[in-house]
Amino acid sequence: MKVAVIGCGTIAHAAHIPSYLKNPDAQIKYFCDIIPERAAGAVEKYGCGEAITDYQQALADPEITAVSVCTPNNMHPTISINALRAGKHALCEKPAARTYAEALEMQKAQHETGKTLNIGVVNRFNDGVNLIKQYIDAGKLGDVYRVYASFRAHRSIPGLGGAFTTKAIAWGGALIDWGVHYLDIVMYCCGDPKVKTVTGEVFSKLGRDMKNYAYINMWAGPPDYSGVYDVDDSITALIRTDGPVVTVNGAWAENIGEAEQYIDFIGDKAGIRLQYGSDFTVYTAEHGSLVRYKPEYKSRDHFQNEIDAFVRCVATGEKLASHIDTVIVTAQMMQAIYDSSERHCEIVL
Amino acid sequence: MKVAVIGCGTIAHAAHIPSYLKNPDAQIKYFCDIIPERAAGAVEKYGCGEAITDYQQALADPEITAVSVCTPNNMHPTISINALRAGKHALCEKPAARTYAEALEMQKAQHETGKTLNIGVVNRFNDGVNLIKQYIDAGKLGDVYRVYASFRAHRSIPGLGGAFTTKAIAWGGALIDWGVHYLDIVMYCCGDPKVKTVTGEVFSKLGRDMKNYAYINMWAGPPDYSGVYDVDDSITALIRTDGPVVTVNGAWAENIGEAEQYIDFIGDKAGIRLQYGSDFTVYTAEHGSLVRYKPEYKSRDHFQNEIDAFVRCVATGEKLASHIDTVIVTAQMMQAIYDSSERHCEIVL
Amino acid sequence: MKVAVIGCGTIAHAAHIPSYLKNPDAQIKYFCDIIPERAAGAVEKYGCGEAITDYQQALADPEITAVSVCTPNNMHPTISINALRAGKHALCEKPAARTYAEALEMQKAQHETGKTLNIGVVNRFNDGVNLIKQYIDAGKLGDVYRVYASFRAHRSIPGLGGAFTTKAIAWGGALIDWGVHYLDIVMYCCGDPKVKTVTGEVFSKLGRDMKNYAYINMWAGPPDYSGVYDVDDSITALIRTDGPVVTVNGAWAENIGEAEQYIDFIGDKAGIRLQYGSDFTVYTAEHGSLVRYKPEYKSRDHFQNEIDAFVRCVATGEKLASHIDTVIVTAQMMQAIYDSSERHCEIVL
Amino acid sequence: MKVAVIGCGTIAHAAHIPSYLKNPDAQIKYFCDIIPERAAGAVEKYGCGEAITDYQQALADPEITAVSVCTPNNMHPTISINALRAGKHALCEKPAARTYAEALEMQKAQHETGKTLNIGVVNRFNDGVNLIKQYIDAGKLGDVYRVYASFRAHRSIPGLGGAFTTKAIAWGGALIDWGVHYLDIVMYCCGDPKVKTVTGEVFSKLGRDMKNYAYINMWAGPPDYSGVYDVDDSITALIRTDGPVVTVNGAWAENIGEAEQYIDFIGDKAGIRLQYGSDFTVYTAEHGSLVRYKPEYKSRDHFQNEIDAFVRCVATGEKLASHIDTVIVTAQMMQAIYDSSERHCEIVL
Repeated sequence: MKVAVIGCGTIAHAAHIPSYLKNPDAQIKYFCDIIPERAAGAVEKYGCGEAITDYQQALADPEITAVSVCTPNNMHPTISINALRAGKHALCEKPAARTYAEALEMQKAQHETGKTLNIGVVNRFNDGVNLIKQYIDAGKLGDVYRVYASFRAHRSIPGLGGAFTTKAIAWGGALIDWGVHYLDIVMYCCGDPKVKTVTGEVFSKLGRDMKNYAYINMWAGPPDYSGVYDVDDSITALIRTDGPVVTVNGAWAENIGEAEQYIDFIGDKAGIRLQYGSDFTVYTAEHGSLVRYKPEYKSRDHFQNEIDAFVRCVATGEKLASHIDTVIVTAQMMQAIYDSSERHCEIVL
Repeated sequence: MKVAVIGCGTIAHAAHIPSYLKNPDAQIKYFCDIIPERAAGAVEKYGCGEAITDYQQALADPEITAVSVCTPNNMHPTISINALRAGKHALCEKPAARTYAEALEMQKAQHETGKTLNIGVVNRFNDGVNLIKQYIDAGKLGDVYRVYASFRAHRSIPGLGGAFTTKAIAWGGALIDWGVHYLDIVMYCCGDPKVKTVTGEVFSKLGRDMKNYAYINMWAGPPDYSGVYDVDDSITALIRTDGPVVTVNGAWAENIGEAEQYIDFIGDKAGIRLQYGSDFTVYTAEHGSLVRYKPEYKSRDHFQNEIDAFVRCVATGEKLASHIDTVIVTAQMMQAIYDSSERHCEIVL
Repeated sequence: MKVAVIGCGTIAHAAHIPSYLKNPDAQIKYFCDIIPERAAGAVEKYGCGEAITDYQQALADPEITAVSVCTPNNMHPTISINALRAGKHALCEKPAARTYAEALEMQKAQHETGKTLNIGVVNRFNDGVNLIKQYIDAGKLGDVYRVYASFRAHRSIPGLGGAFTTKAIAWGGALIDWGVHYLDIVMYCCGDPKVKTVTGEVFSKLGRDMKNYAYINMWAGPPDYSGVYDVDDSITALIRTDGPVVTVNGAWAENIGEAEQYIDFIGDKAGIRLQYGSDFTVYTAEHGSLVRYKPEYKSRDHFQNEIDAFVRCVATGEKLASHIDTVIVTAQMMQAIYDSSERHCEIVL
Repeated sequence: MKVAVIGCGTIAHAAHIPSYLKNPDAQIKYFCDIIPERAAGAVEKYGCGEAITDYQQALADPEITAVSVCTPNNMHPTISINALRAGKHALCEKPAARTYAEALEMQKAQHETGKTLNIGVVNRFNDGVNLIKQYIDAGKLGDVYRVYASFRAHRSIPGLGGAFTTKAIAWGGALIDWGVHYLDIVMYCCGDPKVKTVTGEVFSKLGRDMKNYAYINMWAGPPDYSGVYDVDDSITALIRTDGPVVTVNGAWAENIGEAEQYIDFIGDKAGIRLQYGSDFTVYTAEHGSLVRYKPEYKSRDHFQNEIDAFVRCVATGEKLASHIDTVIVTAQMMQAIYDSSERHCEIVL
């Protein structure tokens, strides 16, 4: 199966490309980027493929079976939809789209073409997350009545003034960049419950005065002070579902110097705290005593898991947990948080 | 000034009585408790005062200037109102009342009699809390756009099956017993902002099956398995004010074994994390560098501060920060959280 | 811009050469050392440049724009002056010269030729030191009335019996080798105040009986027992300026086994202790409480900063904080300490 | 032997009175204080003696052999001189006097009367200090060429606004209150060398704006904001003697939050750091290796040692190390530091 990687930025290099290279059933035919040096650089670095600047060239190639969409958020819908309509399967990086309306358009195109459209919610391919899901599914936690998702950082705004912080490109900041993962893990582990009410507020504070934003390191940096900063760097929300009530606190940057990045699944029999990107702890009671432990498990590279599953499902027609039909609810929740913040009131879905 | 202590339980012994004894301008004339042994025990222990079981006897004594109401929550309104109408000044333990309606009755009686009615929101007399208030008032934190109040414990249900866990007596659990302090500190430090919307959910989970509630220590214990457990042991809420947005997570008990009991005041210039009952950390930036520090300050006993201020204000007519007029908003917020939880939707005030 | 590195010892390899190699606007044309193997070794190691043993050959080359003088102290004046008179810009390692008279000669040559003469006071390019300067300049410390500079070590005599410990070559020991940095940081951060009185004593003790000098490690070693040891290994001084009063204690070696290497800037509003070569702590008071914190900041390689600034200033004519005109006062202070020690009385400048 | 304790403040209660009470050969006949309650309080507390307010009454009593002068500094000379002239032996608390001129008057009276006049330099009766003196006298340290005395505190101004901080009463602050001990220990251990030059500066900074002086605890407190603060809270000095050069840094309060209270005796064979009020460390070299150790020794109460020695010397005529003849040099040094600070230049003695 021949694929095209569209967009040759950080996520392509860190995740998609090396995983395709290690998959025995896939072959990268095109590296596409509107910046010619980036496309050419990938060809040179990996010693394979062809550099192109127009993704339509890949879509027009009948040898191409599937594409990975690794561009900034604003291009996700157009490229994905065009790929589907050109008969290609697509793995589109998260978030699916900037707005819920765009995500619905993508879903519509998937339904009409019947081609696979998966979203890069890579945590659904994380072995630790899947183990938590097994605990919950098996009833070990009892009734999971409440979840707390915390993605708070002291100073982690990426690429200040660039694509990440420009609303016209990324649509949102901390919520859409980090929150999407947390909300997706919660929904996945809790069995994708139906969302009922959403209230929330988002804030654009610490990056506003770009020159005075103090930091030590910057991912996707350095700052472009001539750029734009108009996205959220801090958010809070309370979401009722027909499963647990979900409370959310998040910040790319805030004036509290504690990195608190975890999800608490709180059940009446047991609870689990997942340290994001790391391991998890189970808290429960046995015979009147209180116990806590960290399961040890084999953890494979979850990007590799994701790409392998994508390649496999293209072949088999299997519907993965990252299918747009399952994942679209996250777009709906994020949209509702932004809407609630704008109107300063709760949204009933 | 002669006072009567009404209710001789834990809070009376731990706070009110020793503080009155150390205040040079106050003298305890009556120890009142409906359990005669408790009243008599206090007289014997402190070597002063008279033991009574009917608080009306104290209210009828013209020598009595003021009373401390240290009973379970359900008796707060009646005793306080009767005391005011009998021409006494009153310091009523927190929460003012079970419901907002009851609190309004108490406020009405205060307005009609002109006598002092203060609530035992002791953190308004805590030197650390007052120092935080100074930082915020002086603009050090800039715009405090968001607050996170966390009063989460692993296993801390008090007196399972007793007055604390019986709705008819206490009205609520974790929110009304602990949350009242956190909400009060937030309102106090942030300048008592106006509340606009409240959404929240409360849960009564871990204590429900009383026999199977696993714990190590129990405050106000031991359990009375023949008693009642029908209050909240876990809560979450999101509150918009005309100042900061306030997110709340709290639990007397939950299956996450981390004690996270702090309040984050998050401003655009600096932030403060107050470890409840302990010290606080300031986080800010200076000349492009990130700094954090814990101020060292003199910390006096805050119950003593509270009683001293109460005795003083009775003499001077001074209106304290713990006056029912200021504090009643907390009753309104807690009522709204309970209402929101019952209706599963946001309350607009 | 083509440069010659004159003297290929420790400081050249550790600082000047790698920094020139990383600077995109500079190119090393000559490695010069009177020991032919050293010059040749540098050419081989870095794979560039030409090895020479006579620095006059570099001065005679019209392609050479600037030189780094990295020789022992005794050659600093002659080489720097000859370089300036040959029309080259010069970066001369610290100390500028052995005596104040020599330093004045160097300054005179700079004035007459108009070529740049900077001294390697590298701490003026240290990000932490510059942050302290910002704190002081911004008034955060209030009136800095007193400074204590401590550069005390237990056993750190370098190259016993070699150039460092031979007065005819180095002129001084602990004061001229280490003290120069401390005095320079003090003067720089405090705004280069005018010096008024200097009293001090220097001691040559622990290295005198070379064979019996006990030590664990020796920098620039091993000992040459056939060499000379006639410099100061311990010093103390008290300096009045029109800014702070500066107290100094220093030792390459002394029989107190505590490494106390810091500078205290003591103001009436706040104070700063800089741990030499590391971070710093700010001590102040806020709202009656005492606070202390260590700012976190980005710290780049200060030798790179220094070389980059030197290359830049040659191109732009910018006068750096390391210009001989600014830095010469340190030579004056050290001269005065040596003079005061010899006469055992205070020197009034 | 019957004694009178003149001045019943902190030092009398902490040191003189209990030590006399434990000495089998002494008996307190009078407790004298110009505040009648203090004198009466002492009689009541110790169950002995007679309370008087006029010390002349004690001097007129032929039964009285000796007096302890425990008043504020300003009364030391007058009372001591009057006592000597009345035929009494005197133990006068440190400092002997406010000025060197006053101390000379006291010495003159001692010489004329032949009665004992000892000063309360209690460290000369400290077992640890005496052990250090033995090390030095025995040549263990070799040539002690240099001493560093550091008595620096973060926040330790005593009795702000009271006798300690009022120049008219105490004459000086940190130097005269704490420095006197450090200088005395240095002189004692080093064999009372002859002083040659003194340069120094004293500062009155942190206590000046009394209301804004931040502190946690205050000895001899609380502050009297209606009082006076015009003494030194920070000092530095450099003193040449015919023995070691002595460098001094001291502060009752300064904006560096490190308590550095020690004396370094630095010899060419070994060094000793005495932690003031605690133990000491010896640093030396043996067989080419570096060694450090803390001698363990029996440490008796040094106030008891002092009083016992005073009682004994009155009986035997023995001349103690605390005799005015030996101790007066400290008064001379402190005077010279104050003079040097006023003239901003070195004083040659």
